[in-house]
Amino acid sequence: MTLKLGVIGTGAIGADHIRRCMQTLSGARVTAVNDINAESAASAVKSYAPNAKVFSDPHALIKSDEVDAVLVTSWGPSHEEFVLASITAGKYVFCEKPLATTGEGCRHIVDAEMKHGKRLVQVGFMRPYDSGYRALKAVLDSGKIGDPLMLHCAHRNPRVGKNYNTDMAITDTLIHELDVLRWMLNDDYVSAQVIFPRKTPKSLPHLRDPQIVLLETAKGTRIDVEIFVNCQYGYDIQCEIVGELGIAKLPEPSAVLLRSEAARSEEILTDWKERFIGAYDVELQDFIDGVRSDKLRGPSAWSGYAAAVAADVCIKAQVSGAVEPINLPAQPAFYN
Amino acid sequence: MTLKLGVIGTGAIGADHIRRCMQTLSGARVTAVNDINAESAASAVKSYAPNAKVFSDPHALIKSDEVDAVLVTSWGPSHEEFVLASITAGKYVFCEKPLATTGEGCRHIVDAEMKHGKRLVQVGFMRPYDSGYRALKAVLDSGKIGDPLMLHCAHRNPRVGKNYNTDMAITDTLIHELDVLRWMLNDDYVSAQVIFPRKTPKSLPHLRDPQIVLLETAKGTRIDVEIFVNCQYGYDIQCEIVGELGIAKLPEPSAVLLRSEAARSEEILTDWKERFIGAYDVELQDFIDGVRSDKLRGPSAWSGYAAAVAADVCIKAQVSGAVEPINLPAQPAFYN
Amino acid sequence: MTLKLGVIGTGAIGADHIRRCMQTLSGARVTAVNDINAESAASAVKSYAPNAKVFSDPHALIKSDEVDAVLVTSWGPSHEEFVLASITAGKYVFCEKPLATTGEGCRHIVDAEMKHGKRLVQVGFMRPYDSGYRALKAVLDSGKIGDPLMLHCAHRNPRVGKNYNTDMAITDTLIHELDVLRWMLNDDYVSAQVIFPRKTPKSLPHLRDPQIVLLETAKGTRIDVEIFVNCQYGYDIQCEIVGELGIAKLPEPSAVLLRSEAARSEEILTDWKERFIGAYDVELQDFIDGVRSDKLRGPSAWSGYAAAVAADVCIKAQVSGAVEPINLPAQPAFYN
Amino acid sequence: MTLKLGVIGTGAIGADHIRRCMQTLSGARVTAVNDINAESAASAVKSYAPNAKVFSDPHALIKSDEVDAVLVTSWGPSHEEFVLASITAGKYVFCEKPLATTGEGCRHIVDAEMKHGKRLVQVGFMRPYDSGYRALKAVLDSGKIGDPLMLHCAHRNPRVGKNYNTDMAITDTLIHELDVLRWMLNDDYVSAQVIFPRKTPKSLPHLRDPQIVLLETAKGTRIDVEIFVNCQYGYDIQCEIVGELGIAKLPEPSAVLLRSEAARSEEILTDWKERFIGAYDVELQDFIDGVRSDKLRGPSAWSGYAAAVAADVCIKAQVSGAVEPINLPAQPAFYN
Repeated sequence: MTLKLGVIGTGAIGADHIRRCMQTLSGARVTAVNDINAESAASAVKSYAPNAKVFSDPHALIKSDEVDAVLVTSWGPSHEEFVLASITAGKYVFCEKPLATTGEGCRHIVDAEMKHGKRLVQVGFMRPYDSGYRALKAVLDSGKIGDPLMLHCAHRNPRVGKNYNTDMAITDTLIHELDVLRWMLNDDYVSAQVIFPRKTPKSLPHLRDPQIVLLETAKGTRIDVEIFVNCQYGYDIQCEIVGELGIAKLPEPSAVLLRSEAARSEEILTDWKERFIGAYDVELQDFIDGVRSDKLRGPSAWSGYAAAVAADVCIKAQVSGAVEPINLPAQPAFYN
Repeated sequence: MTLKLGVIGTGAIGADHIRRCMQTLSGARVTAVNDINAESAASAVKSYAPNAKVFSDPHALIKSDEVDAVLVTSWGPSHEEFVLASITAGKYVFCEKPLATTGEGCRHIVDAEMKHGKRLVQVGFMRPYDSGYRALKAVLDSGKIGDPLMLHCAHRNPRVGKNYNTDMAITDTLIHELDVLRWMLNDDYVSAQVIFPRKTPKSLPHLRDPQIVLLETAKGTRIDVEIFVNCQYGYDIQCEIVGELGIAKLPEPSAVLLRSEAARSEEILTDWKERFIGAYDVELQDFIDGVRSDKLRGPSAWSGYAAAVAADVCIKAQVSGAVEPINLPAQPAFYN
Repeated sequence: MTLKLGVIGTGAIGADHIRRCMQTLSGARVTAVNDINAESAASAVKSYAPNAKVFSDPHALIKSDEVDAVLVTSWGPSHEEFVLASITAGKYVFCEKPLATTGEGCRHIVDAEMKHGKRLVQVGFMRPYDSGYRALKAVLDSGKIGDPLMLHCAHRNPRVGKNYNTDMAITDTLIHELDVLRWMLNDDYVSAQVIFPRKTPKSLPHLRDPQIVLLETAKGTRIDVEIFVNCQYGYDIQCEIVGELGIAKLPEPSAVLLRSEAARSEEILTDWKERFIGAYDVELQDFIDGVRSDKLRGPSAWSGYAAAVAADVCIKAQVSGAVEPINLPAQPAFYN
Repeated sequence: MTLKLGVIGTGAIGADHIRRCMQTLSGARVTAVNDINAESAASAVKSYAPNAKVFSDPHALIKSDEVDAVLVTSWGPSHEEFVLASITAGKYVFCEKPLATTGEGCRHIVDAEMKHGKRLVQVGFMRPYDSGYRALKAVLDSGKIGDPLMLHCAHRNPRVGKNYNTDMAITDTLIHELDVLRWMLNDDYVSAQVIFPRKTPKSLPHLRDPQIVLLETAKGTRIDVEIFVNCQYGYDIQCEIVGELGIAKLPEPSAVLLRSEAARSEEILTDWKERFIGAYDVELQDFIDGVRSDKLRGPSAWSGYAAAVAADVCIKAQVSGAVEPINLPAQPAFYN
């Protein structure tokens, strides 16, 4: 049967997920919507899901018989509450990042889910659904380049707004690498160090930009991630795995090769939303298919917890300038 | 409301379209299925559409109240009959290529559709739905390279089966370029010439391979298409537009860049089915959306007719060795 | 001992060769210089070869004891006379292209050289000395791509001067492909056809630009060469060999990969003089080494003759629009 | 007049330089040769410089009237002695790296040269003569990418011999980056840190491979250099400059693009000698031209000293694991 989805939060990403479920994906429809701003909820319903019911109480939505599974796309600090309530209601829940604003909050969710006895939570980390990262992982897993020894990565945005600060380079930007590289390597982080190069004059006074984060994994693999959010030239995600036998590099997004004005050139995207646009579809379809087959396969609450713990340490390392240990408990068998 | 589709023909592509409609796309479900082989129909229904009804008579399927629109994916020579029947029934119909086996057959469909008074037919040319060709057309239409003067194209397969013959290099292979380049250039073909280079020893005795087809358009643009169906190394589609100001080239499919064994390398696909796999989804979703909004936007019956007329002349040019004129009537306003 | 060179013609390329011999290459020095314009000769001597003697009579230069070998870099129509005089004097001679302005003129030189009994003439075709063409030939000769079936080539200039006409697309531009492809393939041309695409509005009224020349070789290999001398975007030389097993493509000139302004880009040269600048050094050093070891290895008078015969037919094909046969006598054993 | 060169040391590189001066370069000839192994000297002379005199005493060679300038290509520990002797003799001297085995030894040479009052010494760092590095510097100096903020570099060899140890990753391998990046950035190093990733199983027990060296410059630019000398796949030199406005990357060596066996590929060199082969010619010609015009322009004794000081600190950082300061005195005006 068609899956009935309830959506909490109808901001940009929430509205986009409603559209996605109603117009692009297969097997689900949005039947219930809530937002702290009633007008926003009404508008999203009108645009994309005219038959959905608007709930004024998110907890009523979670408990409603009209809702088989929940999408949490509200303000970050409210995620923990709604995910925990969904678990309590025994309902599957897809939660946009962050799962919770702290490692501790994520831990509460992990504990509740384990107590419930079955995986109910999928975190909205979309990069493992990107065709490029999947192709890269396929090469790594094929053994063609041997075991990974080093990763050289970059996460670059053309520019950021005034509210973006030095912490957010970790919690909003690096968080994607923290998740996807852990998945890519099937390994855990054990230490972090942060280096601040010469600051770009294009950055605001309060923001240290660029940064280089050095991570070490349990297996000894070394990762360097350049974070450069005022790089001007484009939204550019790089990931290169150096293995014992060779090197594999994340594909560039496909682009027309142009010969004009004394140059061969290919366009670089400037809007982050376009970069992983295909991955959002695959991610949410996988959640829908997972719920319908009663078995989630996407990023788990534990993944959200692991990324949050590492992010907490990276922020500490920004301040200390030292190599800081990352202590993540062993992954429970429940999550294997 | 969800669109009810009837599918005639449950071979490889028919079964795949059923799966696509039921598991991937939005807004439609397969409610009726027919195949000349009843077991094949039963099997497809069992795998992908358990609630669909199996019809033993394709014409009954076309007329059934359970069917809003028809997908024709049967044996090529039967296409004309089923498309005409769908038009008679006033139902939208998506027909895999060829629309008909001859230009004349296509013309019957065009005439019937125009007499009906509204576009009902979409032909299964998927390349205009490929993200690469779309990006290329966007560059061309942007004016960045000026007006097109020449196109250099190639259509290469690693190898072909014993039943593939010299004609099929046109009707099965070049036919895709004949459609997509006409769409790309918004122009019509006025002549064709075929050149046979030194034959590859990898070809079978009865097959002349490779071939080069030279086309001229009404605006004077010159197109060369290399057809090489035993090229051994991969399935490789090339298209380069030389304009007044610059050159734009169809993107290569995205691939991991590997450094190993003394080479930088990127994988080339070898299976044609993978090359345009994304385009099939977009194509059929566009048909579904078109039917639901009562306005088709995809390749028309006229496109199918135009490609068939050009193909007929190319086959003539294979035999004559001469430059052969292509006489296509002006496109009726009905199709603009 | 150091080779003593006499140079006839001190225009741009003559002066550059004097500089090259005096400041860059090993084993030779310029001892004698002549130009129809005495001031030009004096200026070249002053700049690059202060100890060289200026001859007012080119034939006196050729015969002088101060001259071991001759460089002919004078006006094209005078080449035949000076090359023949050098052969008569029994001296090695390097002649810039064209060897003679007609196939017949080249034939006189071939006959004189064969009568003399030893190779004395090297023609200034520099492309076989280009590292890119050499690498391409090495791949072809390795057998990695099997026997060549088709070549797709392009010769593009950003723009040409007012004196450039439709014939010169053959005699000044295509002539380089006619030489280098014959060397690459070790094969002879048997027919030519010329196609005129839609003319670029960037061309002058008297010039048909672009053109496509279709060549057939004795072994059946088919070559298409796009000649586009007002392409605006750069000086761009393309050569792709399609073989039985794979494809090899002439390397692009090495360039910095730039990421800036929403593009990945590499510079394309716009000045033809820079494209083969390294090849000129290698070419002339090879002539010097050949003379010193009494055995020339570079492009022979026969190569000059073969290119001239093919060029004559291409010009005929421009006018006739037909496939025109190219009849070149078998290469004498003398030139193997 | 032709420059008379005396060569001390006729091992692989010494013999190659003799060949280069006698057969490829302009303006010099080798007139005197010495090697600790008399047979080696005799053999080099016989092969490439039959008229050169073999000296049994290197100091006699340095003082000889037959020698205008000296090439020191002997065993590393002897370099300091011969360079100092050349300075004492007031003769120009080209010294292969290392200038001396320690920073202190280099300092002796700097002091002697400054006391002499004129630059006489050129160090054999060839990378600033590589066309790729020059093109990269031209882009940087053009301002297109703004000021440099970060450099990501790699120095990879397919494998190394048994005698190669962890120190040599600095003194033999990184030393080239230490020189060329200082030249590229026109900046000095102020600290170094060394990180050891998971060791490749392809390395020998005594060798820690790979390593990552993190350098900081006076202007705050951060450099990471991956040193990986058993990478198996090829000899691969990478250098990417991240600037305020964009990124510029060292060109890959030019290579034929091959389509074969389901891959697009370009060859990677495996022999380091081929990678900078062109640079050796340019480097030595520049020394010859510099001597003949009485003004050296290549890497100075100070460059050799600066690289040696940084290398000494990197070795210290390998052991300490800490960020180690690099204290180089300000460059004397003498060397500007």
